[in-house]
Amino acid sequence: MRRPTSLEAGGACSIARTLGVVGERWSLLVVREAVKGSTRFSEFQDALKVSTDILSDRLESLVAVGILERREYREPGSRSRHAYHLTPIGRDLVPVLGALLQWGNDHLAGEAGPPSLMRRRDTGTPVRVALVDDDGQTLEPDEVEVIRGPGAGVPATPPR
Amino acid sequence: MRRPTSLEAGGACSIARTLGVVGERWSLLVVREAVKGSTRFSEFQDALKVSTDILSDRLESLVAVGILERREYREPGSRSRHAYHLTPIGRDLVPVLGALLQWGNDHLAGEAGPPSLMRRRDTGTPVRVALVDDDGQTLEPDEVEVIRGPGAGVPATPPR
Repeated sequence: MRRPTSLEAGGACSIARTLGVVGERWSLLVVREAVKGSTRFSEFQDALKVSTDILSDRLESLVAVGILERREYREPGSRSRHAYHLTPIGRDLVPVLGALLQWGNDHLAGEAGPPSLMRRRDTGTPVRVALVDDDGQTLEPDEVEVIRGPGAGVPATPPR
Repeated sequence: MRRPTSLEAGGACSIARTLGVVGERWSLLVVREAVKGSTRFSEFQDALKVSTDILSDRLESLVAVGILERREYREPGSRSRHAYHLTPIGRDLVPVLGALLQWGNDHLAGEAGPPSLMRRRDTGTPVRVALVDDDGQTLEPDEVEVIRGPGAGVPATPPR
């Protein structure tokens, strides 16, 4: 697979590494649309109003790192086309999107209130993104620390 | 205050709005360093190896949106300088950083294991970023839906 060159630039930090893969604004918005159910090029383009070139490039990169999977489909009377499906690796970006949504809702919405809300599909009760420990206890940021892990100083590897 | 022009481009979605404010790679890495305790220009520069121009620009933007607060300090025999302190609004970005760290740890670390780990400061037990409901129950991504909120279609406002 094509290894994104920005991956190496991430160095030893998983935050920088992840930003190297999805840190470009359009990439995360493409993932957002995939989470919402878009699979076809035209669906992404209609939702994002982004140029064909940028969209092609971002879809290609997201396939290369295993966030999206490319599948062929063909409608009657048309040539075969590509569809883009979120992989389990891609679905794991939902907490990233949720955290971005939450911060925007909390701090950029103003008096009108949040433009969109996360809720439980079954009960409709509100959902938040939180730091939780092994026992499922919710923690405040200052109760959490980041320490060196076993892979500190080791170059990143692509997700597949 | 100076309103970031990229804010309006975010439209009605809090994800896009947040990316409009902190979606640039260096911005989130500056916030990461601020969470780790950096306050001085030189500390950010040493940690990030970023050009003076880019760092100045990103610090300025983060102050403008209320993520960092600028304070003066003066060391004996030196002129007064600026220090940059994380505000409560900035600290609310910790779940975003945590979610990015977690995804990188889970999918980019390879056999060497994660370069860094989140844990409880008091007990040392592992911490994750998760979707949780009102009762603190952890949810899978497909148990959560995003619906229109009261501010749908209303322009974003800056955080202060």
